[in-house]
Parts: sequence; structure tokens; C-alpha cells
Amino acid sequence: MASNTANGAAPAKSKFDPNFTQHVVDLMSPETKPRHREILTSLIKHMHDFCRDVELTQDEWILGVNYVNSLGQAYKKNRNETWRVCDILGIESLVDEINHKIETEAGREPTSSTILGPFWSPETPFRDLGASVVQNMPADGQLTFFHGTIFDVDTGKGIPNAVFDMWQASTNGKYDVFDPENQTRHNLRGKFRTNEEGKFWFYCLKPTEYAIDTSGPSAELLRIMGRHPFRPAHIHMMVTHDDYIGVTAQLYPSDDPYLSTDTACAVKDDLLLTFKPVENEPKGAILDVEYNVRLCSKSYKPDSTMLMGNANQNKF
Amino acid sequence: MASNTANGAAPAKSKFDPNFTQHVVDLMSPETKPRHREILTSLIKHMHDFCRDVELTQDEWILGVNYVNSLGQAYKKNRNETWRVCDILGIESLVDEINHKIETEAGREPTSSTILGPFWSPETPFRDLGASVVQNMPADGQLTFFHGTIFDVDTGKGIPNAVFDMWQASTNGKYDVFDPENQTRHNLRGKFRTNEEGKFWFYCLKPTEYAIDTSGPSAELLRIMGRHPFRPAHIHMMVTHDDYIGVTAQLYPSDDPYLSTDTACAVKDDLLLTFKPVENEPKGAILDVEYNVRLCSKSYKPDSTMLMGNANQNKF
Repeated sequence: MASNTANGAAPAKSKFDPNFTQHVVDLMSPETKPRHREILTSLIKHMHDFCRDVELTQDEWILGVNYVNSLGQAYKKNRNETWRVCDILGIESLVDEINHKIETEAGREPTSSTILGPFWSPETPFRDLGASVVQNMPADGQLTFFHGTIFDVDTGKGIPNAVFDMWQASTNGKYDVFDPENQTRHNLRGKFRTNEEGKFWFYCLKPTEYAIDTSGPSAELLRIMGRHPFRPAHIHMMVTHDDYIGVTAQLYPSDDPYLSTDTACAVKDDLLLTFKPVENEPKGAILDVEYNVRLCSKSYKPDSTMLMGNANQNKF
Repeated sequence: MASNTANGAAPAKSKFDPNFTQHVVDLMSPETKPRHREILTSLIKHMHDFCRDVELTQDEWILGVNYVNSLGQAYKKNRNETWRVCDILGIESLVDEINHKIETEAGREPTSSTILGPFWSPETPFRDLGASVVQNMPADGQLTFFHGTIFDVDTGKGIPNAVFDMWQASTNGKYDVFDPENQTRHNLRGKFRTNEEGKFWFYCLKPTEYAIDTSGPSAELLRIMGRHPFRPAHIHMMVTHDDYIGVTAQLYPSDDPYLSTDTACAVKDDLLLTFKPVENEPKGAILDVEYNVRLCSKSYKPDSTMLMGNANQNKF
């Protein structure tokens, strides 16, 4: 099937009106803001090409209209089904990559970004290096000594005074704010400031996988695609420093069974953790994991900003 | 910007992960139904290409998520904002073309199809040839003598016993069911059966343009695009015969100011009407219009069906 490709290739002969898509695009007035025009032009072209490529039937189209309506109808606090559908289709993860991809002149790349998720807290307290974020130890928790270095991707030197902000769910798959019966405020959250060598260390849990909420229409999409609702286990991190481009990511145990089938399509190769068993650890940790973070100087992207605060609102 | 084009062209080198889109597609299980796989594969590719083409920012993506949610939240009886957005973006009209495009071996085409709209009634009564559908004459109504022939596009012969089902809004922009104060049931609706020569004739009003409902989020999209909310004036028709592929369309006065900027992108060149002034017409008509309809034999598309009944439900 012919497509009006975005890169300007001539469309192959189509049995459908070859001028229709451009007609719809041209309905925009000269006063349309350039960015609105750019986005809507591409959206119209891709949606039309999609309809032509699959020769969408009217019944299928109506089914799609009804499905889109069902997403907004299911909306409520802490349940954003449209957002979740974007996760399932890889759109949130792709937008994250588009907004955070960076490469130095020498071809070096900072640690990959991945989706923020809905559970970051701006109120997480700073803790001393070596402290534990485990305020409420679950019976099946595996205490882990987590340590690493945050370094400059160009110089290879450690970055002092960088902030490693982390958060994770407990073994029941819940974050502190959604689990008041079992967790005190700030449980499994902590901000750590790197020492003069760029090193940080603390205690946490080995993370455990959990399923996304399957009570809404997004679960129907998963069912149609034959996909499970699980996210691989992960520890969230948000790494910042005044002189460096921040990195927000999720770190996954390298032995997690859901790495290649993540519901949110948010796993990247450089975000894997290897947990090693340890014995006689001073604070009783039974696992040890090292993770080093590469940051790029802000000089590569002077207008970079951290993920907007509103990205954290009204998600699930 | 590179795109994974639907026609299989190799994507140009992109700065983004070239394997991501295929990864998401491949998450579908082998048990996914083939048609679901086809539709979702194309949808994922086009949505990803859209995000990459415009380098969608996170704030823009969140705005889009919120907008999609607002469509479903605005849903109520007789107001389907998702449907209306599809009209504004030309999607309903395109899907209509995809489902009704037909061409004979000799390259002849039947009368174009266009969108059904929400106001067709399955209960419209048959009227005698020469009757008037104007039960309630508005003060500014222009009585029109409407006549034509329904003929076979291959043989050029008139088709006896075909049904010309028509409906139109009154001069206040309202259809009978939504205007009980001014209109009796079946006002401006009628079904006419062609005579032995394939001819039909009746009296109606010259149609007048009206604006779509602008109280919901679809109007915000029109505003961003710098577009007006008007549909050109039109008379709806649904032409059927047991041996022919039916045609559902809208017929527009050729002098309507909104022909090229129809909100629903549903105007086609062969659906225009030329209204000619007449004097001393026996029943007092002041305008005369002739419109002939070309039908294709069902042998060209044995599995063709009329537009599904559910297409008429829950639209505006």
C-alpha cells in the first residue's frame, strides 16, 4: 500500500484520492502556529496512511472511536488509561528517548534515560551515605548493598556532589504512599550526595516485579496483543548535578524474567543490575550490586531541563 | 527524519534506536489474531514515526494524553467528540472512501460515497413520486423541485425500482427529531421509488449550511487549526437496489461558500447540485435541480453491504 512517507518520497499510485490528505492538511489557516502545523501535519499524514495501509473498515474504525472514548471515560485519580495505552504501545518510552538522547562529539553516550513513572516524590529526604532506605523490612525482603560512582562521560572522573535520588516498590509491588498499612512515609526512598570521588552507597531491597492495574480498557489491549501485564522489577533513579545533564532511569535485575517483554517497553541494555550474594556483610545485606552512572556536561545541551514536574501528575 | 515506512523501504539512519519499533511490534504473541496484528503493527509504526518525525516533546505528549482523555470525558448521548475529531482530521471521510471505492473493469466509477452522518432514519416513509417532503415550510425556505435518474454505470440505462432515500435539515440547521417545536415527524425526509425509466422526482428545500456543536474539545482542535465549524449545506441521500451496490452520500449546492473547507472534509466533485431559478412552477417551487446517480452492479463486489446500522448510533 502506498504511503505519503514523512521523508518526502513520492507516494506510489494508490486507488484512493491522492490529494485528500494534503487537502485536509491545507485546511489549516495561515495563522496556525508553526509547531501546531508541524505536529498536526505529521499526525494527519500518519493517521491517513495507517487507515489506507490496513484498509480500515468502518466497523473497525467505530470500534477504535469507542475504544478512545472508553479511555477518557475510565479516567480517575491515579488511573490514566490513555497514558497506560501509550506505555503499552511504546510511545512513552519512545518520547522519553527522543527527549533525552544525547551523544558527545567523541561519540560517548551518557547513561540511558527511561520513563520516570508516576511514583517519584519531590519530598524524598537526603540520607547519609551508607544509610538504609528500608524503614519497614518485609518478611521476604532481600537487603542489598547498592554502590557506585557517578562520573563524567568525557573525562572518566568521578563527579562530587551529584545527587542520586532513588525510589522502589516494596515486595508487595506497592510504593509507600499507596501502602500506608505496611510502609511509613519515605520508606524505600532516599537521596544520596556523592563524595569527593563521585561515589555513593546505601542499603535497599532487591526489587521485585509487579503487574500494572488491569481493571481498565488498557488491559483489553494487552489481551488482544497476547501480552502479560508485568513490569520487570526495578529501582528508579534520578541523577542530578548543577553542571551536568540529569538522567532519570529505572534499573533492572539482569535475571528478571520480564526484561524483554516489559509492559512499558522501558528496558535498555545499560540499565541492568547484577546482584551478587554476600556473606557476613556488616549490616546484614545478603546481596551486593554496583552501578555506575555516566553524565554529560550541560555544555552539550545548554537548554536541557529535567523532566517537567507535570509529567508526574495524574498518571496511574 | 527517518521513518519505518509502511511500504517496506529501508529506514534512513536515525539517531534513535533503530530496533525499538520492531521490538514493540514483536511483543505481540504468536496467538494474536492476524487482523489485530496487521492493524496494531501499522498503528505502532505510524505513531512511532509521528513521534520521531516531529520529535515530540514530553510536554506535548502529555498534552496529547490529556486531550485524548478529554474526548472520552466529554462523551454523552448525541455528543461523540472522538468521532467529531475524526471528522475534523478527515479520518471518517477517508475510511468512507476506503470502504466504498469501486471501479468497473471499464474504468467507470459509480457516484461517490461520502459520510452517512448521524441523522439517517430507518423509519422514513415512502412517498409518491412528485410529493413534497416539506411538511412544515419555514418562512425562509426555498421550495425546490428535485429530479433525476438512477442509472447503471455500465449500460447507461435507468434502473427501475431503485430507492432514493433523502433527508435534510431545515433552514435553522436542525433535523426533525431535534426540533419538535418547528417540525413534525419525518419532515424533510422521504423515500422515493424510481419509475420504469429509473427516474424520480419530488419537492424539498434548498439546503442551508450549519455549524457543528462547538461546546466540546473538538472545537479546540478547530481553533488551533484556524478552521471554522461549518458544514456546507447538503441534502443526504441513500440510494439502494437489490441488484446494485448502494451509495450513501451528501449533495451540496455548487455555490456553497464552505465546499472547500467543510469541517468534515466530506465534499466530492461529483456530489454538487446546481439550483436554477424557475417561475410559475405548478406547485410553487422557485428552484429546480437535477441530479443523476450512477450505480454499479453488485457483481463487482458480491460481499458489499450497506453501511452498518451501528454506524448511525451514538454519534453527535
